[in-house]
Amino acid sequence: MLFELQAQCATTGARAGILHTPHGPVETPVFMPVGTQATVKGLPQCWLEQDLDAKIILANTYHLFLRPGHELIRELGGLHKFMSWPRAILTDSGGFQVFSLSDLRKISEEGVLFRSHLNGDAHLFTPESTVDVQLAFGSDIMMVLDECLSYPASHAAAQSAMERTVRWARSGYNHFLRRKEETGIRSSLFPIVQGSMFADLRSACANELLELNADGYAIGGLSVGEPRALSLEVVETTAPLLPENRPRYVMGVGMPDELPEYVARGIDMMDCVLPSRNARNGCLFTSAGKVIIKQSRYRNDPAPLDARCGCYTCRTFSRAYLRHLFQAGEILFSTLATLHNVQHYLDTMRQIRQSILLGTFPAYLAAVRAAGSV
Amino acid sequence: MLFELQAQCATTGARAGILHTPHGPVETPVFMPVGTQATVKGLPQCWLEQDLDAKIILANTYHLFLRPGHELIRELGGLHKFMSWPRAILTDSGGFQVFSLSDLRKISEEGVLFRSHLNGDAHLFTPESTVDVQLAFGSDIMMVLDECLSYPASHAAAQSAMERTVRWARSGYNHFLRRKEETGIRSSLFPIVQGSMFADLRSACANELLELNADGYAIGGLSVGEPRALSLEVVETTAPLLPENRPRYVMGVGMPDELPEYVARGIDMMDCVLPSRNARNGCLFTSAGKVIIKQSRYRNDPAPLDARCGCYTCRTFSRAYLRHLFQAGEILFSTLATLHNVQHYLDTMRQIRQSILLGTFPAYLAAVRAAGSV
Repeated sequence: MLFELQAQCATTGARAGILHTPHGPVETPVFMPVGTQATVKGLPQCWLEQDLDAKIILANTYHLFLRPGHELIRELGGLHKFMSWPRAILTDSGGFQVFSLSDLRKISEEGVLFRSHLNGDAHLFTPESTVDVQLAFGSDIMMVLDECLSYPASHAAAQSAMERTVRWARSGYNHFLRRKEETGIRSSLFPIVQGSMFADLRSACANELLELNADGYAIGGLSVGEPRALSLEVVETTAPLLPENRPRYVMGVGMPDELPEYVARGIDMMDCVLPSRNARNGCLFTSAGKVIIKQSRYRNDPAPLDARCGCYTCRTFSRAYLRHLFQAGEILFSTLATLHNVQHYLDTMRQIRQSILLGTFPAYLAAVRAAGSV
Repeated sequence: MLFELQAQCATTGARAGILHTPHGPVETPVFMPVGTQATVKGLPQCWLEQDLDAKIILANTYHLFLRPGHELIRELGGLHKFMSWPRAILTDSGGFQVFSLSDLRKISEEGVLFRSHLNGDAHLFTPESTVDVQLAFGSDIMMVLDECLSYPASHAAAQSAMERTVRWARSGYNHFLRRKEETGIRSSLFPIVQGSMFADLRSACANELLELNADGYAIGGLSVGEPRALSLEVVETTAPLLPENRPRYVMGVGMPDELPEYVARGIDMMDCVLPSRNARNGCLFTSAGKVIIKQSRYRNDPAPLDARCGCYTCRTFSRAYLRHLFQAGEILFSTLATLHNVQHYLDTMRQIRQSILLGTFPAYLAAVRAAGSV
């Protein structure tokens, strides 16, 4: 998988590039909408492709492994065909959800034993099996199984989890290389740098993982309860340890005003459930800040949600109508709100990318910092 | 409101026409999708207009009166503007929901006193006030307040309710004519023929209401628990009592294979929550009959829901994917399923209309009867 660097900000190191995946090019920096169960909640695929022009989405291995099952998805031609999504898909390893959703998880050197949150069935994820599950999906970018700790964690616990993460990454990556040789698939597998908030562990982890010479690298173990300044600090120290000519992916971030901060620290890829989850809860991101749509001030507000946004929701409906849909618990609210919030995220990333290409990213970042709270 | 009759089936009396509303022409016979709370549940307006090409939808006065309130909708420019729907809207009087949803309703000659199902607040609907509420909406077609009984009802109860319905229709209609003179609006108000399942009462009611010389007439009091053969029988005896040169609307029906049966009895307009409600519950109407999508037979079914349907859902997704979305409780299921079911209803009506224009309706009807259960 070729990563083509197009421009780099001389001041911050922010990068603009193109990641060439088996399902088309992805301009970076990129925000990947989350399609947990093979759907970005509330959004039809045609909107995601045509209106939003998303080039890559993320799906969750844990959820799809449990339902409908990776063998069913393989039988139906893979995840792209199953969900009718012709562009790139990144899947996580399932590890994060095992640690956050499932009961009775038990970690051993072999892998992680867990019970389904749906029906209590026991399953084992190993570094090899999660690769095989993702191969059944046909994901463009797969992630290695890692051990992810919550915050705070002791140095000893973080070191132990990091070392296991490295061992699992090696096993998973070797398994992936064998499968790649057998099948000729063009997918990539990204290792994940762990180490909690400890710079020495992050550094050691990155050094070990570099030996795999992977097509890209992720920074995991963030958005687990730590203060956001700390997440940025960890990324700031970790990103420079990763290869310049490979995409760098921070998993599970962030708020809209954090996107340029991660880009300023050399990050190329991000994902987060915030735009879609907050949309369903009535929290809308606009160019003028957050709109909590249930507030009575919007009761008779004829203005569009965001006059500077070009999405169908903002072109067509008033805040008063959106508030009515929210108050009435209407499905259409989730659809219109998610469309807008995802558009806001993708537009933000497109503006960031454009400013890097034009050499104006430092001014863009300064404006966001002046307006925002980071 | 001009109703232009274009063709009539010599065998059955089925009619094809065009109803010219203030918000555009409506080809009849027509099925009106139900947009209870100013949204057809799950469907974006652009799909309703462009994909489905619906020319008229129905909205519920009771619901919109309670939330967001008719004065708010008036302030925001009326219901068309509020919900961004540029085509025709028919609103009911609210009476049916008062009788089916609200607590503590108390009927008097003045009107019906009821408590909101949302917060228990007391409200009074009168024949005049429900006209005023619908005028605030700016509905193209408004309905008079009627007294609707459940099934079965005694002849005495049905007569009393029918007579009150006639008196309310007169008061409401006179009020409407005064408002029309004051404001110059071009909307229409349709009276509703009641009389439960009694032919003499239906006939007496129709005769009284004809004096109003309204732009159209409805047959109400059906779909209240009676067997479907009886609903058809009541319509068969009532429809011929209504003026030939005005549209005839049967409220609240029906199943897909009933649509041509009502048309065969001289009906021009219908509405029903079935296509949208059943969609959300996983019951899908196809050219080969009902599909209950949760059934395990669809687990790995790569076929489209209905190979003969041209909707986005059928063009794009497999039954296996739709089943997965349903099982996972995903919002997208409701959207895709509703799109399909409404398309199935609208396509059915378009085929019926076309067959009337071509003079082949009797053959169409015979084929439906041979295939179906009516």
